[in-house]
Amino acid sequence: MSQLYKRMAVIGCGLIGSSVVRAAREKGCVGEIVVTDASEAVLERVRALGLADVVTTSPAEAVKGADLVVFATPVMAVAGAMKACARAIEPGATVTDVGSVKGAVAEALTAAAPDGVFVIPGHPIAGAEHSGPDAGLAELFEGRWVILTPREAGDPAYAAATEKLTSFWQQLGAQVEIMDEKHHDLVLAVTSHLPHLIAYNIVGTAADLEQVTEAEVMKYSAGGFRDFTRIAASDPTMWRDIFLANKDAVLEILGRFTEDLQALSRAIRWGEGDKLHELFTRTREIRRGIIALGQESAEPNFGRDRGKH
Amino acid sequence: MSQLYKRMAVIGCGLIGSSVVRAAREKGCVGEIVVTDASEAVLERVRALGLADVVTTSPAEAVKGADLVVFATPVMAVAGAMKACARAIEPGATVTDVGSVKGAVAEALTAAAPDGVFVIPGHPIAGAEHSGPDAGLAELFEGRWVILTPREAGDPAYAAATEKLTSFWQQLGAQVEIMDEKHHDLVLAVTSHLPHLIAYNIVGTAADLEQVTEAEVMKYSAGGFRDFTRIAASDPTMWRDIFLANKDAVLEILGRFTEDLQALSRAIRWGEGDKLHELFTRTREIRRGIIALGQESAEPNFGRDRGKH
Repeated sequence: MSQLYKRMAVIGCGLIGSSVVRAAREKGCVGEIVVTDASEAVLERVRALGLADVVTTSPAEAVKGADLVVFATPVMAVAGAMKACARAIEPGATVTDVGSVKGAVAEALTAAAPDGVFVIPGHPIAGAEHSGPDAGLAELFEGRWVILTPREAGDPAYAAATEKLTSFWQQLGAQVEIMDEKHHDLVLAVTSHLPHLIAYNIVGTAADLEQVTEAEVMKYSAGGFRDFTRIAASDPTMWRDIFLANKDAVLEILGRFTEDLQALSRAIRWGEGDKLHELFTRTREIRRGIIALGQESAEPNFGRDRGKH
Repeated sequence: MSQLYKRMAVIGCGLIGSSVVRAAREKGCVGEIVVTDASEAVLERVRALGLADVVTTSPAEAVKGADLVVFATPVMAVAGAMKACARAIEPGATVTDVGSVKGAVAEALTAAAPDGVFVIPGHPIAGAEHSGPDAGLAELFEGRWVILTPREAGDPAYAAATEKLTSFWQQLGAQVEIMDEKHHDLVLAVTSHLPHLIAYNIVGTAADLEQVTEAEVMKYSAGGFRDFTRIAASDPTMWRDIFLANKDAVLEILGRFTEDLQALSRAIRWGEGDKLHELFTRTREIRRGIIALGQESAEPNFGRDRGKH
């Protein structure tokens, strides 16, 4: 492992930001680490945990002299944070982020970036149930995918900056994939945003029922519901922002989901067992594909905590 | 642990049936164990695994002399299996099942049961990702809930049989709850059937998209989708039967879910961040309730495999 950047500024130090800090420190791929956050309580924890070399309340102060600036705030806060520090970012610096939406965020970063700064949006597909600086883990990115969505083609200096950022994530243990930002937002709408929306919705529906109490829902949650509650416990601000920032792709995928659900509902109403069986057999194949890809353990025990019917 | 029944007949030996067999054997709460199944391949495995004292293709043969008969077939197959052996069930025997739907199954069992037989429907809320006799585990019911839905009030012999069946499940490590069968079907529609329906649907929707490939869906599934694929890999026949047998409750809950989803969709379209934030905060509380109940580990590491956004 070698030092790639001499000074890394991390703007926003929640789960992902603090994991980047921990991992970069452990791997030795950055020199100095500067952290800033809009919350004084978060900075207090960052100080107590001894995560950074410099802790500051000022984004402009944080980016001074940094050759790598990582925005790790909720996605709707990136634009404001960038505006607050853009003029202090030095030419030649790489600016990236970790948000789950790329189109809107990339637009905001690029619009505010001074000349000579390389804006290379990014998204590590990694996370954990808990949020905040205490929840971060140095190994969070090990074996995970990081998607980069570079915006400029044909500029050799930009290409070199992208290569360097790729090496950075690789040193943190991740595999890097390059993708068009619009496509990223559609892929993530399917694999992450819709699942979260559905999970939030089903938990909300269950909580509002008159005939079944919340206590019963919790007590008998092992039959499948519990898995949804874990997803629906994700950070509310982060997820509000994701749905607002990726509105078009989310609504498009949600439209397809709703159409399919209506057909499924109709099949149940009319007792069309064959249609149900056909779908349920097909979805099994996808699971097998994921296991074959090594994205998930196939051990029978892994399912144990799963519950059923 | 003491022997409660002298001969247990298990009709259908998949994941749950074979787990009942393994657990009952290990705890010594039954004398002889007889297994039957509609599939010769399953019986072959039961023989190879040495699970039962007697293995037979005939349900009527299986129940002869049994004081406990456990139906562990897919729910729509219970009626047929019961008809095939009802006349051979001896007076004083207890007949139960393990299905995820109680109303329709209880009706079928009661209709066919000879006089003097105690029909006490049941449902262990336990399971695993894999199916079949090889997937069974002696410890599957440890710490799990088993819901019994007794049908006759005021008959002391029936009450005694219910007590005995309760002890049986307790010896297998479960906690037993008594519930009205209609209410059971509604509770399970919320905590298990709707989650499965939604998971099957979302995986189907993802597989059918033109703009995102199946390979991409699998590759980036760590962001939430993967959890749904695990649920959507559940046994197709078992689940087809559950939706057909619990149609009314499932459609009722699905109607509520769809209504809520439309409101959520509208909030995204109109950029109503506060509404989203309010819901996402509320659903977090349910998760905390489940953790407080001890139904789930709260360890940060547990969430690690979860992925995010």
